[in-house]
Amino acid sequence: MIVVMNPGAGKEEVARITDKLKNMGYGVHLSTGENRTIIGVIGQRREETAQIMEAMPEVERVVFISRPFKLAGREFHPENTVIRIGDLSIGDSNLVIMAGPCAVENEEQLLQAAEAVKSAGAKILRAGAFKPRTSPYSFQGLEKQGLQFLAKVREKTGLLIVTEVMDQFTVDEVSGCADIVQVGARNMQNYYLLRELGRIRKPVLLKRGLSATIEEWLMAAEYILSGGNYDVILCERGIRTFEPYTRNTLDLSAVPLVKQLSHLPIIVDPSHGTGMANLVPPMSRAALAAGADGLMIEVHPNPQEAFSDGPQSLTPLQFQNLVSDLKGVALSVGRLI
Amino acid sequence: MIVVMNPGAGKEEVARITDKLKNMGYGVHLSTGENRTIIGVIGQRREETAQIMEAMPEVERVVFISRPFKLAGREFHPENTVIRIGDLSIGDSNLVIMAGPCAVENEEQLLQAAEAVKSAGAKILRAGAFKPRTSPYSFQGLEKQGLQFLAKVREKTGLLIVTEVMDQFTVDEVSGCADIVQVGARNMQNYYLLRELGRIRKPVLLKRGLSATIEEWLMAAEYILSGGNYDVILCERGIRTFEPYTRNTLDLSAVPLVKQLSHLPIIVDPSHGTGMANLVPPMSRAALAAGADGLMIEVHPNPQEAFSDGPQSLTPLQFQNLVSDLKGVALSVGRLI
Amino acid sequence: MIVVMNPGAGKEEVARITDKLKNMGYGVHLSTGENRTIIGVIGQRREETAQIMEAMPEVERVVFISRPFKLAGREFHPENTVIRIGDLSIGDSNLVIMAGPCAVENEEQLLQAAEAVKSAGAKILRAGAFKPRTSPYSFQGLEKQGLQFLAKVREKTGLLIVTEVMDQFTVDEVSGCADIVQVGARNMQNYYLLRELGRIRKPVLLKRGLSATIEEWLMAAEYILSGGNYDVILCERGIRTFEPYTRNTLDLSAVPLVKQLSHLPIIVDPSHGTGMANLVPPMSRAALAAGADGLMIEVHPNPQEAFSDGPQSLTPLQFQNLVSDLKGVALSVGRLI
Amino acid sequence: MIVVMNPGAGKEEVARITDKLKNMGYGVHLSTGENRTIIGVIGQRREETAQIMEAMPEVERVVFISRPFKLAGREFHPENTVIRIGDLSIGDSNLVIMAGPCAVENEEQLLQAAEAVKSAGAKILRAGAFKPRTSPYSFQGLEKQGLQFLAKVREKTGLLIVTEVMDQFTVDEVSGCADIVQVGARNMQNYYLLRELGRIRKPVLLKRGLSATIEEWLMAAEYILSGGNYDVILCERGIRTFEPYTRNTLDLSAVPLVKQLSHLPIIVDPSHGTGMANLVPPMSRAALAAGADGLMIEVHPNPQEAFSDGPQSLTPLQFQNLVSDLKGVALSVGRLI
Repeated sequence: MIVVMNPGAGKEEVARITDKLKNMGYGVHLSTGENRTIIGVIGQRREETAQIMEAMPEVERVVFISRPFKLAGREFHPENTVIRIGDLSIGDSNLVIMAGPCAVENEEQLLQAAEAVKSAGAKILRAGAFKPRTSPYSFQGLEKQGLQFLAKVREKTGLLIVTEVMDQFTVDEVSGCADIVQVGARNMQNYYLLRELGRIRKPVLLKRGLSATIEEWLMAAEYILSGGNYDVILCERGIRTFEPYTRNTLDLSAVPLVKQLSHLPIIVDPSHGTGMANLVPPMSRAALAAGADGLMIEVHPNPQEAFSDGPQSLTPLQFQNLVSDLKGVALSVGRLI
Repeated sequence: MIVVMNPGAGKEEVARITDKLKNMGYGVHLSTGENRTIIGVIGQRREETAQIMEAMPEVERVVFISRPFKLAGREFHPENTVIRIGDLSIGDSNLVIMAGPCAVENEEQLLQAAEAVKSAGAKILRAGAFKPRTSPYSFQGLEKQGLQFLAKVREKTGLLIVTEVMDQFTVDEVSGCADIVQVGARNMQNYYLLRELGRIRKPVLLKRGLSATIEEWLMAAEYILSGGNYDVILCERGIRTFEPYTRNTLDLSAVPLVKQLSHLPIIVDPSHGTGMANLVPPMSRAALAAGADGLMIEVHPNPQEAFSDGPQSLTPLQFQNLVSDLKGVALSVGRLI
Repeated sequence: MIVVMNPGAGKEEVARITDKLKNMGYGVHLSTGENRTIIGVIGQRREETAQIMEAMPEVERVVFISRPFKLAGREFHPENTVIRIGDLSIGDSNLVIMAGPCAVENEEQLLQAAEAVKSAGAKILRAGAFKPRTSPYSFQGLEKQGLQFLAKVREKTGLLIVTEVMDQFTVDEVSGCADIVQVGARNMQNYYLLRELGRIRKPVLLKRGLSATIEEWLMAAEYILSGGNYDVILCERGIRTFEPYTRNTLDLSAVPLVKQLSHLPIIVDPSHGTGMANLVPPMSRAALAAGADGLMIEVHPNPQEAFSDGPQSLTPLQFQNLVSDLKGVALSVGRLI
Repeated sequence: MIVVMNPGAGKEEVARITDKLKNMGYGVHLSTGENRTIIGVIGQRREETAQIMEAMPEVERVVFISRPFKLAGREFHPENTVIRIGDLSIGDSNLVIMAGPCAVENEEQLLQAAEAVKSAGAKILRAGAFKPRTSPYSFQGLEKQGLQFLAKVREKTGLLIVTEVMDQFTVDEVSGCADIVQVGARNMQNYYLLRELGRIRKPVLLKRGLSATIEEWLMAAEYILSGGNYDVILCERGIRTFEPYTRNTLDLSAVPLVKQLSHLPIIVDPSHGTGMANLVPPMSRAALAAGADGLMIEVHPNPQEAFSDGPQSLTPLQFQNLVSDLKGVALSVGRLI
């Protein structure tokens, strides 16, 4: 942490600040430049200290040197985290494909979708029982009944299940049914939910918030990790920009950047990331080429009848063709589907 | 709702779509242009219908004509909503000032802050017992003890209390203590929380999400209103942009725009909106001049010792001077403090 | 400037970097923290040095301490710059109002607009002869003929003229006719144009780019100032965000922030900043309350026949009412219209 | 174009609007919904008409149905445009790689860079003689001397040259030396420059503006095409978002989206798009997998001594390895390098 003094600050002002820092247990190094004194602060990065310093009239601002994440950071854990669920591994050279409808609509739709994505090569079924919707008048999901259908379909097909949890008090219920528990973009900073997920022993898929910085996203993972659950999978799903032609702007540079900053696996959701079914295949290819550990793709037996997200859902046939295309891209970057 | 057909769509394709719409209970009007046919759809706006249409290969896109909010909209309720809490009213010609520290730190700090803001003219004390923090290693609030301190200070000073609720299961506890229950920016789309707040009979202060559009914000209010709680106060607190010099970009044009679209009162939080104490006075003045119904301002007895948000907190003296300045601005737009 | 070394960097690596810096003429201060060494670099801020350092494999990143602007900065020139044009002054306690149509359409329209804004109290007429338009098929302005009409109307009405220059080769022509030469948002980083404007002796009104940071905006002013033209007026006109209801998001916090960082006057254009005529009055009031030195407002004798920007133009009557309202707001912040 | 009437508008108001539209030569179709009448307007899309309509008090807003670009749109020209320069083609199954230093620094640096990128497989040398720089105190390019060095190096190596033009009056000079004339992001809406480039007979590489929508970008291309120059290559180079870890956010979904909307070739610049050399290889792979027709990559013989952009420049060896990696990715999507 570096404290930048105001241009006018003299010896006395600097002494007042360094004394304060020393009293708080920090070491200090002074560096007197042409216009300003800067104070190098030795000790643990603490948000509170920075805010106290910035509230002092002698101080212009505080600059952080180290990153705020610890357990999520690669400095702490240099090797890639590989998450294992039965035979499946996420984060090594094998790529994982999660696919299925936006929402569980009924048992038949779910089973059809499950069989279709399974036969195309997906290992994990995605489908929401609890649906966060912008409008209170929109379909909000089948909730508990949806979880029951998911459990049945898992039994019938052998697919693993990833599904969203929307609040901390259904964590047990959802994690009882799901193999991977998903946190949606709108809940990325629902800290009570994150803390609760730190206590379970199921992997968590943490979607990036609509306008979350990479740092905030890793700090959200830190909440889960610091609770004792080390199995976090990050999922890039598009950020909000000024561009109106796409639903979101898929930030694929997040993939190699997260790989550099963190040891956690990262997958990409091109369906929400673009909102348009015909952009899903090229952006899926691009995501793998960028180094993603897998994909989450919306597939519906009949997108034209979907309760939600039809315009961004692939048909089973489109999905099958996509997976077969992706094998070549995966090979070209030394990965396997 | 308007369905725009693809340029190539012929009579048969148009008929397929209009039949589908009619089967769903809608009326249709065709309009055949030089390149495209468009279908005017008569009937209730439904997200689901739009998505089904956009998933059809013959359809280019769907354009909404009406706004999605109903109860929150001015068409539904042309008069301004005025919220009454005891003698206090929010949303009429009187301006309301909420002030206090970011967090309840201890009883003494809270009481000092309360007395300071009261003597300067604030009627409502703000202070967080539950604190949403980006880092799991930062101070997370005194939680239940914080609520107790708030209750004590209310009794001693007669100030009304506004404080944040962070999840649906503490709604009763928080609303038992608070006169106004606050929803933070990160929870603006926590729909389970919003639904729960629709069931209480205390006013809700709903902060705008960091990257929420005005429409999404009004839809979040709609969740609360549609649950039966009509006392919602909106609070603009800055949005996320590319500008790094300020913590957020305070969007004051939201004030007159919300007034035009909705009947709900709207106040402004220039402390979070800018992140810098010296920008709070000019932006407070600007907020009132833009037509805001009040302000929420961070005041700390000693910002340099604050557990959080010190750099954006005013001292009691600065706050007192500000309130006295604001009286003139209020008068110039026909309002009273 | 601070050079942050990689976590793994040892004494040798640090020495290599400090030697390089010393060879470039800088002084250095080492500060060895728990995980990282940081190097305080004493000497002039240079973008080139930072880039060389960041390209070294031992270096994690470079952090700037001082701001890049010099002549535009308040440290260089602590007093407010006041620009004088004849009797008129911009940047002192008097507020300046510039008003008029988006574009010069014909002599009659211009004269009507001029007389209307003059009688309402404006001292400066705005109107574009050269129009930057998104589409090559839209009206591009009357160009030279437009300048002639402006000159005539100035003579008839005594109003000063502000009009846009779009490239460096019409600078003489435009500045021959205009009292203030305007640089549009799309040209804020047209450096050849800015350099040319550094050579003239007419004030320049520099609009903020659509997604320009405050720092980039002040650096654009720096181009003009460093050429020897010290009379630059900044104009906030809205930035691009994700919000679709307004044309732009008017960033009023730019006003007090620029006042703090720079000595240059700053005005606000609520017409482009919002794109909606009914938001212009409240945002004009807010701009003055935030401390702006003036306003630029679109007024058209008949907005429903305007060649461009009709939806954001006030009628002469609306403008007259607004100016009369603004007098009270101005007084409440100690300014005069 | 659709005109949406205000909710309160009755028959008379609707008649006033339809009469006005008919007088302007448009056909109209009325569609009367539950709350609002909408008017389908048949005839050419014109910005001016929309603005006139939106300025009418009876009108709520105008919605465009057709896209504003014509010559740049795929409806106008269904086949991909393939640009030929000698033996080289851009926009067919062959991928093009443009590489070289940010700036021409001296003849030797340029020649070294040219030989390095040529031997690795690039066919086109990029290097700037005119450099747009945020600060007037930064290196602004060798200008005319830079062009001379480029001409010499072209002769020696046989590489084609792409270099930036910064204003309309050096168009002849730059296009005399360059095989492809580049328009930088900051000049994407410099309409005088674009018009001038419509008159030359050399291909133009048009970079996307920092916060330009895809529609605005295609409209900038439209300026060039409508001037008679049909050889426009689009170049995605990152947009501005709230994320501070990368210089820009590379919007790869622009690639398949542009392919769908337009027939023009599109390449990607991952160097400016990310600002970090170690993100360039993964994002180059991703760009090709997304369907880009080529790449523009910064390569410097010695990034640690570069006058600019060192942190995002590859060394010749890194570039060579990248090109060899890219061959596999290209094959996996049916393209060739």
